Amino acid sequence: MASKEMFELGSKSSAIRDLFDYGQKQAAIVGKENVFDFSIGNPTVPAPPCVKEAIEDLLNTRASVEIHGYTSAPGDISVRNGLADFMNTTYNAGVRAENFYMTCGAAASLTMSLKALVESPEDEIILIAPFFSEYTVFIQNTGAKRVVLPPDTTHFQIDFAALEHTITPHTRAIIINSPNNPSGTVYTADTYTRLAALLTQKSKEYGHPVYIISDEPYREIIYDDMPILYVPKFYKDTVICYSYSKSLSLPGDRIGYILVPDEVEGAKEIYAAICGAGRSMGFVCAPNLFQKVVLACLGKTSDVAVYDANRQLLYNGLKDMGYECVYPSGAFYLFVKSPEPDAKVFSEKAKALNLLIVPADDFGCPGYVRVSYCVDPDMITRSFTAFQKLIDQYK
Amino acid sequence: MASKEMFELGSKSSAIRDLFDYGQKQAAIVGKENVFDFSIGNPTVPAPPCVKEAIEDLLNTRASVEIHGYTSAPGDISVRNGLADFMNTTYNAGVRAENFYMTCGAAASLTMSLKALVESPEDEIILIAPFFSEYTVFIQNTGAKRVVLPPDTTHFQIDFAALEHTITPHTRAIIINSPNNPSGTVYTADTYTRLAALLTQKSKEYGHPVYIISDEPYREIIYDDMPILYVPKFYKDTVICYSYSKSLSLPGDRIGYILVPDEVEGAKEIYAAICGAGRSMGFVCAPNLFQKVVLACLGKTSDVAVYDANRQLLYNGLKDMGYECVYPSGAFYLFVKSPEPDAKVFSEKAKALNLLIVPADDFGCPGYVRVSYCVDPDMITRSFTAFQKLIDQYK
Repeated sequence: MASKEMFELGSKSSAIRDLFDYGQKQAAIVGKENVFDFSIGNPTVPAPPCVKEAIEDLLNTRASVEIHGYTSAPGDISVRNGLADFMNTTYNAGVRAENFYMTCGAAASLTMSLKALVESPEDEIILIAPFFSEYTVFIQNTGAKRVVLPPDTTHFQIDFAALEHTITPHTRAIIINSPNNPSGTVYTADTYTRLAALLTQKSKEYGHPVYIISDEPYREIIYDDMPILYVPKFYKDTVICYSYSKSLSLPGDRIGYILVPDEVEGAKEIYAAICGAGRSMGFVCAPNLFQKVVLACLGKTSDVAVYDANRQLLYNGLKDMGYECVYPSGAFYLFVKSPEPDAKVFSEKAKALNLLIVPADDFGCPGYVRVSYCVDPDMITRSFTAFQKLIDQYK
Repeated sequence: MASKEMFELGSKSSAIRDLFDYGQKQAAIVGKENVFDFSIGNPTVPAPPCVKEAIEDLLNTRASVEIHGYTSAPGDISVRNGLADFMNTTYNAGVRAENFYMTCGAAASLTMSLKALVESPEDEIILIAPFFSEYTVFIQNTGAKRVVLPPDTTHFQIDFAALEHTITPHTRAIIINSPNNPSGTVYTADTYTRLAALLTQKSKEYGHPVYIISDEPYREIIYDDMPILYVPKFYKDTVICYSYSKSLSLPGDRIGYILVPDEVEGAKEIYAAICGAGRSMGFVCAPNLFQKVVLACLGKTSDVAVYDANRQLLYNGLKDMGYECVYPSGAFYLFVKSPEPDAKVFSEKAKALNLLIVPADDFGCPGYVRVSYCVDPDMITRSFTAFQKLIDQYK
């Protein structure tokens, strides 16, 4: 009656969604205050005031068709002009409005970029474990092969010795994601430099570029005064996928962009193919009102200090109890080593204590769990008793 | 450097977009008031007041995460409950929240439904000419075959004698679109009854259902007190694709839904496959704020009377000049027979008079042009001199 592939994809929901749904049901039974839901990355810090102000201003000063009508498929030109100016001022990016394609968020940015880049079912897309689990689904949509680079569990940067053997003549692109979901780590300038050197060498060797797709929804959620690095400065064949879901706490409003700088080899062809991919999947245009909202909020973010406080509370709390945690430099995830080899079993034991944490098997990193700390700080404090009980089982 | 298929799709823009872009450029040269742009279906009637009121109310009374956070992939349950109640009260539909999947507009509804239904590259999807040209692109995205039923140029209903021979054992679905873009015609109850009888017979003959995908963005834009007919009442294996783009003048905000009633054969499998298709293409969820806006505006529409006045002005004006026009009963398009066999040549002659009308070749109906009348009424009146000059060339 229906496509088997789509049916399977729609039937088996993700581990994250399952836990989240369980949490909602459990809350009804034991009380919301007794469920410690660290499962999902739904920003809890409110959107910054500029969002409400911009919407109200647009509603009061613009004609209906201006804010609710179609924009061109790549997006409102005034929005893309503003975005180019912002990127040039902030990162000295040297980009123009025509390099941007406004999208319905990061997932759309990725499916469109991948569909634009993949030429044949022999093409390979490399994921660096740990990686956001939906990448697998997005690659499947293009018909290309997913190739997983095992995690560097020492520093959660990139295992270059292994990567060298993972790139083949069929490699089209490598997806990177820094700050990283789920590990919370941030790539260093050294990592980018080494990655660029290797990809440049391999591109030369195989006679065609190996592209970077840089998925950057957590770009501005970064701590300890670490610098935000502009990836195309390290490697020119970089396509950036951005979303305002996390930086402006607008995940439900579906707004982001793809940036294809002129320096990218075949930039014009790739940009046109992105237009084709958007058309083919039925995206039409990115939400008009929210295109204009993000223009009005350029350079603004939600209050990252709240996440930073959560980070320190959770990281220090768990370290003190004896958990082995990856030091989180960005995003809002703490990556914790499971005290037993099977993180799914560990996560089930946590669940019995109403502590909802996600086993990282689907992120390509068995033996770890992801603890999402975009939550109420109170809940973190209240969860410590359960976290203590959990680790006591291993003492 | 890029996918050839996507590159081609992104490079050759549609005839409509080309004309629209030409109009914008021409306006800069000869003055906006001297260009008569009937090319595009961008609603000019403002969104009804409930839209602004609902947004302001949501901004002032709801927490940020409630209106800007993720909803579940199929959509906010309170929105879908409200929608089910509305459809039950209005059409006696007998549906539940679980039958609805909120989408990013009609195009997304269609790409997701098609991807969910198509099982193999041998599958065939039937389009009834004239049809919205992007259907071709959406079918291509699934890998299925497009099969075109030639137009019934007498009544612009369905040529059933021809349709009987067009349906094969490979037919998965037939897309219908009433009120129709581009012809402006509306299917009668008799047409639905005959279509249902034929599809029921063919489904029995081939041992599997031939589904209707009913694309209904113009559902409420209907004139002369014609009734709005609920297609599943005629044929149970109907999946409805809806969008608020036209009824609430919100095309840029990308909000609509798919309805899979329980009576549809394999409803559960199809619904799950729709979830899979949305996930696969990266839709994540329909825009949260606008899900809640359409809930607040259930049963409301933009002022259709404006389109009705335009319709009468344009239809009568052109008839009086000697144009052969299809009587428009819905949507906001007038379908006009080209006075010469090649409508592209006719459309070029119109363009020389700064009159922008779309040749219907890409709609599967050569020899006709589409005149979109969701425009300023003044422009219609001012355009008459040019329309008169144009037809005088054929006298």
